[in-house]
Amino acid sequence: MKPKVLMTNDDGINAPGIRSLWYALKDIADVTVIAPAQEQSATSLSITLRQPLMIQKQTWDGEDNIYSVTGTPADCVKMGISVILDSEPDLVVSGINRGTNAGRNLLYSGTVAGCIEAALHGLPAVAFSCHDYWETDYTAAQEHVPNIFSHVLDHPLPKGTLLNVNFPSKELEGIKGYKMTRQGKEYWKEDPAERSHPAENHSYYWLGARLQEFDEPEESDVRWLKNGYITAVPIHVDELTDHEQLKLRRDQFEGMFEREEVTP
Amino acid sequence: MKPKVLMTNDDGINAPGIRSLWYALKDIADVTVIAPAQEQSATSLSITLRQPLMIQKQTWDGEDNIYSVTGTPADCVKMGISVILDSEPDLVVSGINRGTNAGRNLLYSGTVAGCIEAALHGLPAVAFSCHDYWETDYTAAQEHVPNIFSHVLDHPLPKGTLLNVNFPSKELEGIKGYKMTRQGKEYWKEDPAERSHPAENHSYYWLGARLQEFDEPEESDVRWLKNGYITAVPIHVDELTDHEQLKLRRDQFEGMFEREEVTP
Repeated sequence: MKPKVLMTNDDGINAPGIRSLWYALKDIADVTVIAPAQEQSATSLSITLRQPLMIQKQTWDGEDNIYSVTGTPADCVKMGISVILDSEPDLVVSGINRGTNAGRNLLYSGTVAGCIEAALHGLPAVAFSCHDYWETDYTAAQEHVPNIFSHVLDHPLPKGTLLNVNFPSKELEGIKGYKMTRQGKEYWKEDPAERSHPAENHSYYWLGARLQEFDEPEESDVRWLKNGYITAVPIHVDELTDHEQLKLRRDQFEGMFEREEVTP
Repeated sequence: MKPKVLMTNDDGINAPGIRSLWYALKDIADVTVIAPAQEQSATSLSITLRQPLMIQKQTWDGEDNIYSVTGTPADCVKMGISVILDSEPDLVVSGINRGTNAGRNLLYSGTVAGCIEAALHGLPAVAFSCHDYWETDYTAAQEHVPNIFSHVLDHPLPKGTLLNVNFPSKELEGIKGYKMTRQGKEYWKEDPAERSHPAENHSYYWLGARLQEFDEPEESDVRWLKNGYITAVPIHVDELTDHEQLKLRRDQFEGMFEREEVTP
């Protein structure tokens, strides 16, 4: 029996990236696509609590286990697990995203959030993103997806850990290899641009983004991507406690509390 | 000179919780409130890239460094740092949230996301949340905020780490003390409810939520909250690499790559 896969993304069900991911896996897995009806880039782990969610079926190449959901990637995974699929998937995959999700930008990504949602449910998950945002070509990525897919099936991820995969720019000359590495420091900072409203007496802003580069550690996804490697970073989301700080701060913090006097 | 504070939340600028937080700090800090114009619960670290952001000034008790932004908590912190404030704040505070943000639910929270945004900018940040979602009473919380505030000013947090503070239910008999502890496992799972549309031939869903309890570790925020303690968990967001998995998986992963034959 083929492994059961829930496939989502954040660029929306009509994005070319998810179609490439589907072509990469449709013959070797039992894939159900459950993706946002609209683009949901940078929606992070948002979930939709104040609006109803509608599900619509589509057909791709004659196959009809394709669903759009009027929500975020996290909504899609939740609806997939609790409404659409009759049993838990063996794996959740998300992407292929238009634009890289490396360095410290992970938590903004809807693509990665689909996998965080899976990890919080105890399911293994892999996020796929392509470096190029403009004129993205998913061909090379699509070719390597089955290898990465078999890696996570043959070597199960522990609960609460996902794999964050990025493909290097097509501008580099061919893919040099695979690197499993650590998360880098690169960060997209806001870069607001002010505009004036033509009728009302006020201005408004476009949030914008500007890439901040940092001294990267000896190796990181950011570094290896620049050198032409496909990178994979195991990311854990179950517990984010900073245990070192916990030890250092505990006594001072707990000592501040003053018990109210008990009148005898 | 008083410490400079950027204050945000996810329940929106008109929520009572942020007013309590403001009253707790307005005399001991130079506070600028920059909060979402509308409720933004469960929007996680979403940012607004496809819509313009409008800023509006308000006055509270005759003080006018109060701004609403038509976006998420992360947008508010970004606009605060890059547009509204003339220099970086010493501290970002977020809350007081209506409803607990303990266990593994952190990453959904807009309240905590305001602090994640700050941490990604290298700024110290504290998130405050009240356990009670219904008939929330922020009085007790408000009383303890200055202690926690002085703790983080006197004992600076390292870059990339925030403090996640929760106040116990008012149903418990008084606050027992302060506990600095680790993040627990409790999780709000979706609990979808189907409804039928009166006119169209389809149903829709409300995502819903149902609390899942787990065997908590010997101590955790979830446990101490139940026992009537104010909990604080240092949370790190700069690097989420699962280093153990990285070591275990690296060789297998990297070995899968097959270099294309170079024809001589």
